[in-house]
Amino acid sequence: MQVAAWRCVAPTHLDRFFAPRSLAIVGASDEAYWSRNAYANLPAIGFSGRVVPVNPKRARVFGLDCIPTLRQLDSPVDLAYIAAPPGAISAVLEDAGAAGVRNAVIIAAGFSESGDAGRQLQRSLVDQARRHGITVLGPNCPGFLNVTDSVAAYGQQIPLGIPRGGVGVVLQSGALTTVMLKFSIAHAIGLSKVICLGNEAMIQAADVLEYLIADPATRVIAMFLEQIREGGRFLALADRALLCGKAIVVLKAGRTPAGQKAALAHTGAVAGDEAVVDAALRQAGIVRVRSLEELLITAGLLAQGYSLGGGRMAVVSASGGACDIIADRASDEGLALPAFSVETRAELQAYLPKFATVQNPLDTAAIDTVRETGTAAVPMDVVAEMVSRDPGFDFVLYMGFNVVPQIEPEPGERDRNIARMELVRDMRCRAPLPVVPIGLTCLEAGPFAKRIYADNGIWMLPGIEFGLTALGHAVHWNAARQDAEPRARAVHSRPKPFAGAGKQGTWSEAEGRRLLESAGVPLVPATLATSAKEAVAAAERFGYPVVLKVCAAEIAHKSDIGGVKLNLGSAAEVGEAYAAVRAAGLKAARNGIEGVLVVPMRPPGVELLAGVTVDSTFGPTLAVGLGGIWVETLRDVSLAVLPVSPPIIERMLESLRAKPILEGARGGPRIDLARAADAIWRCSQAALSLGDDLQALEVNPLWCRNDRVEALDALVITGR
Amino acid sequence: MQVAAWRCVAPTHLDRFFAPRSLAIVGASDEAYWSRNAYANLPAIGFSGRVVPVNPKRARVFGLDCIPTLRQLDSPVDLAYIAAPPGAISAVLEDAGAAGVRNAVIIAAGFSESGDAGRQLQRSLVDQARRHGITVLGPNCPGFLNVTDSVAAYGQQIPLGIPRGGVGVVLQSGALTTVMLKFSIAHAIGLSKVICLGNEAMIQAADVLEYLIADPATRVIAMFLEQIREGGRFLALADRALLCGKAIVVLKAGRTPAGQKAALAHTGAVAGDEAVVDAALRQAGIVRVRSLEELLITAGLLAQGYSLGGGRMAVVSASGGACDIIADRASDEGLALPAFSVETRAELQAYLPKFATVQNPLDTAAIDTVRETGTAAVPMDVVAEMVSRDPGFDFVLYMGFNVVPQIEPEPGERDRNIARMELVRDMRCRAPLPVVPIGLTCLEAGPFAKRIYADNGIWMLPGIEFGLTALGHAVHWNAARQDAEPRARAVHSRPKPFAGAGKQGTWSEAEGRRLLESAGVPLVPATLATSAKEAVAAAERFGYPVVLKVCAAEIAHKSDIGGVKLNLGSAAEVGEAYAAVRAAGLKAARNGIEGVLVVPMRPPGVELLAGVTVDSTFGPTLAVGLGGIWVETLRDVSLAVLPVSPPIIERMLESLRAKPILEGARGGPRIDLARAADAIWRCSQAALSLGDDLQALEVNPLWCRNDRVEALDALVITGR
Repeated sequence: MQVAAWRCVAPTHLDRFFAPRSLAIVGASDEAYWSRNAYANLPAIGFSGRVVPVNPKRARVFGLDCIPTLRQLDSPVDLAYIAAPPGAISAVLEDAGAAGVRNAVIIAAGFSESGDAGRQLQRSLVDQARRHGITVLGPNCPGFLNVTDSVAAYGQQIPLGIPRGGVGVVLQSGALTTVMLKFSIAHAIGLSKVICLGNEAMIQAADVLEYLIADPATRVIAMFLEQIREGGRFLALADRALLCGKAIVVLKAGRTPAGQKAALAHTGAVAGDEAVVDAALRQAGIVRVRSLEELLITAGLLAQGYSLGGGRMAVVSASGGACDIIADRASDEGLALPAFSVETRAELQAYLPKFATVQNPLDTAAIDTVRETGTAAVPMDVVAEMVSRDPGFDFVLYMGFNVVPQIEPEPGERDRNIARMELVRDMRCRAPLPVVPIGLTCLEAGPFAKRIYADNGIWMLPGIEFGLTALGHAVHWNAARQDAEPRARAVHSRPKPFAGAGKQGTWSEAEGRRLLESAGVPLVPATLATSAKEAVAAAERFGYPVVLKVCAAEIAHKSDIGGVKLNLGSAAEVGEAYAAVRAAGLKAARNGIEGVLVVPMRPPGVELLAGVTVDSTFGPTLAVGLGGIWVETLRDVSLAVLPVSPPIIERMLESLRAKPILEGARGGPRIDLARAADAIWRCSQAALSLGDDLQALEVNPLWCRNDRVEALDALVITGR
Repeated sequence: MQVAAWRCVAPTHLDRFFAPRSLAIVGASDEAYWSRNAYANLPAIGFSGRVVPVNPKRARVFGLDCIPTLRQLDSPVDLAYIAAPPGAISAVLEDAGAAGVRNAVIIAAGFSESGDAGRQLQRSLVDQARRHGITVLGPNCPGFLNVTDSVAAYGQQIPLGIPRGGVGVVLQSGALTTVMLKFSIAHAIGLSKVICLGNEAMIQAADVLEYLIADPATRVIAMFLEQIREGGRFLALADRALLCGKAIVVLKAGRTPAGQKAALAHTGAVAGDEAVVDAALRQAGIVRVRSLEELLITAGLLAQGYSLGGGRMAVVSASGGACDIIADRASDEGLALPAFSVETRAELQAYLPKFATVQNPLDTAAIDTVRETGTAAVPMDVVAEMVSRDPGFDFVLYMGFNVVPQIEPEPGERDRNIARMELVRDMRCRAPLPVVPIGLTCLEAGPFAKRIYADNGIWMLPGIEFGLTALGHAVHWNAARQDAEPRARAVHSRPKPFAGAGKQGTWSEAEGRRLLESAGVPLVPATLATSAKEAVAAAERFGYPVVLKVCAAEIAHKSDIGGVKLNLGSAAEVGEAYAAVRAAGLKAARNGIEGVLVVPMRPPGVELLAGVTVDSTFGPTLAVGLGGIWVETLRDVSLAVLPVSPPIIERMLESLRAKPILEGARGGPRIDLARAADAIWRCSQAALSLGDDLQALEVNPLWCRNDRVEALDALVITGR
């Protein structure tokens, strides 16, 4: 167990924490790795504030006068960077407290990440820090970089030339920081803050997320996470970020189903932890990526702030082969390549040589007949601008940089390149649509190319492969932003607690039906019979055929014990079935049965599954899908963290692979999606009405046939 | 239409073609882009042979004496690199013929890629070249590089430092060549030949493939293809490559279903062109990739020649975050991360600090307690070697290079790095398993790192994202190599032509049944009745219930016209159904009906679909799947280019998503896969027995129930 410390650290405090104007380096030494780097990083990032080395064994370190402990500070520093060994931390915190130092980064490992003793040590550390009003980042943490404000409290050597920009990076793994910095430099991805979380003893991922959402310099937040804690707070913050237009991009490790939850019901088996994480992040408009490259490139693209109204892409490229690859990748990423409008076609045809193939993607290389000169006959910027005036597109993908030399060219070629780049810059200013520059592969541009790109405000997507993935993310994020149903709104409709809550264990079907009824879920009519006579009377009332099911809290899986008889067509059959079902029930249930449910037998329809389980991170989670083989074999379910609204549930149903069946494939009945979604929403409200007692609620099947929807069965499990 | 020129160019001839020891550059000029580059590239690649500039308007070019035409050569050159404009090509070829020059690269565009006139021009060019015994690469082609033999006939500026090695690159798009070269340099991917194909007027992709398979310097062939021609030859060459252990990696553009084939039958709708390409490449053991990066990195890895017996991977990494990402990506790529053996665990535990978490992937950073020194406490090479002795693995993934500096470090650090790299080198020599080095991201290594890697024989997979994809490909390719059933063997079992072939159009079911019978396909018994009395007699013989189906060549879809009656339980019902079915048939078929088929009604079973259509590139192609919704909605089919053997068909069935249904999911009947596969194989033989007349053959359903398999219906379409 991780040490729990849910008291969150306010973003206003973190504003000060992450922008210290004076630093003490505790455990400073010219030889020790962490403190030496921490000091060397300060000029590298441009820090101009006060730095005080602290070491009881030295008089001078880093060429500066050294004080023995923080108590000798003549005025408090904003932050202490504590590079002392684990055993010395406690004394250092006492000193910090006495000296009025309120912020500290602790590098030392050997705390909660390393066994019981370490966890105890970390608890003491937190208690001590709280007593002194000290906020701690770490322990087991190399620290942070604040690129915006030119300050670093960071103990690994940082590379030179970190670009300043709008991407805030948060990492639950310190070992990945250096490569993230190098990648950002290589691909000109401007950073605002880079924060390693360490053991999160006090400052947690969600605190930093909240801080970066509020940070004016941060436009996009890129996170590497190994574990999401405080799921509810995390999602609420994601909603806030979406509302204020800051994208969150997450590389969450542990995607693969190492362990599935114990299957209380069908729902449990399909709502594995990682599937829920996936659903929760998607629901909250968070972009989930799978690689470090994708994390930074997607964040880099989103930080450009292109206004992408949709995914209709026009492509202008100097390579036909690239056009083909782009077309394939666009299709993978859900981006469309519509045809040019009649007007655009006409304009392009008039402008381009007669034999040019005017199509989207547009290969301008095929148009370039003046090969002898080695330069394009047709200025690509002119073509791109024409295309950008076509109202049928949302953006233009512009691949025209192949010819830019990597290294400093001769003056003549240099000037030609600069002039060409200025044309591109001016065209992008005039173009009514975003014109997104992209390179062929993820190769880094050379120094000359980098310089002229930067001079002309051109940020290059690094290659078709990563670039198209990032574009797909950006388009979907923009869509999520536009039609987000803020969770905040849905939260207001939390249902009243169910009067019958407080039960423990599995409920009988009759009890489950009462819960569903209270939430307005349409139910198949049923009578709880306690004699064959009552059963027959109920059957006569409903009309034949009917179904008989034993009703007892102890029996969750009635079919398995012979407790269900289907398709009973006469009073005689009902009488016989009553006896059989009752006997089976009495045999299986030690505490007796409530009776036998008589329900009308429904004709074949589409059978949905609606289930709610409780995820340990995100809480009650809804799973919808088709019943039977679709759930069991194909795992064709759609998940959402509750609460969600009926329209969202309708979209969940539409996202199923089995969608054609919902639409009446093969001449079968179709279902009324809106009605089904409403019924499922009511099931979810029924589940939520159980509050913290909820363990699982499952309606399987939810029978649908054209405009009819009925819950045919109900399983409810409660307990803490 | 592309100009067809299927006469292939022999690899022995191409040996000479691609390794000229003397060159003429026709249209040479110090100013012209292509010829200037072609000349400048020669010293860049290390060419030391004779070079003759040819230009009627110049006396000296490139500082060399220039001759007016090829006729003035005092002895023939091995290859003419023709940089002349399109209008001059014909005259140059005449000169070449007269001068005894037998090989030429033609750069000029304006041939088959640009309209009817261009196609005509290309045809003339080929005729003329043939007359003179000249082999042409191009036109519309920048040429080729032979890195092995230090010669280039190539008109775009090549970057310096192209590494020599085992990857042969073939491109149907010249515009992608430069980036391929740069990428190879950046990631130390050694190249043998780089060949642009241009319009393939004479030398075609398959010719070059054959040449590279025979080329001793080439170990892996990387191809960028926009179109595969000569499908049969291509696959046969792929078989040859697989047998001799040379991997082929293909980036085939046009993956997405721009246009599906007209649906002659269900099979046609699911066997889209690209799905067939996919199946054919997989079947032939060709690795298909989706990006330029993946193409070169996969080829680079395969060229290392690791002997990968399987996909069981041990990971040793200096970053816990990386371990998590690797675990996720391994799962994506079908690589396993088994636990260490008891012995390995014990050995690691004894060696590592007590609190270390000994698990696979192994994070050595967590073990590194001596943070103060900034170096790992535990030499990673020792750990990797321990792990490499565990018999439960096929290879070790080694990520321990994070600390190698990018730029030349101070002498002390330099020596430490070199010493550490030598330890890794020596460990890899001792380790019983392949130890595969990998970096965190696709960032290029710095000059210092590159040098010490190269000095110690270390080739670094560029990052987890691309690296794991490439490893997955390599493992699957090794598996394909091990259990490939060479097509060559299957080809020997081509069936004898069916006696009844030669028909045109749709066959009646009775005719179709005769074809299937000839191939030994198990059929449901049937009687063709021409009177109600005969129908009843047949039904009595089979036993009730039975099915009646009208039989006429004109009626392919019998159900649609009311020509099928199911589940007939008595003589009276059969009599009535006979009349109805016959009447419906007579109404629908202008040329009358053959009669009415009486067949026994089978109980519910698993209904398979087995269909053969003819792909325009690869010929007869088999599709197998479940019938009904599985084909129509989920497109759950497996494809293979024919012929294939029954065991392969069994694997095709096992690869279906619907596999659990085949195994008797939900208490349904299970099927005997071997029997089903044998029946499907017989269907495929029946299709092949129609030779070139085959258009489509479909058995739907092939009814299976436990050990019984029967074709219940048959649709055959022939015609040219």
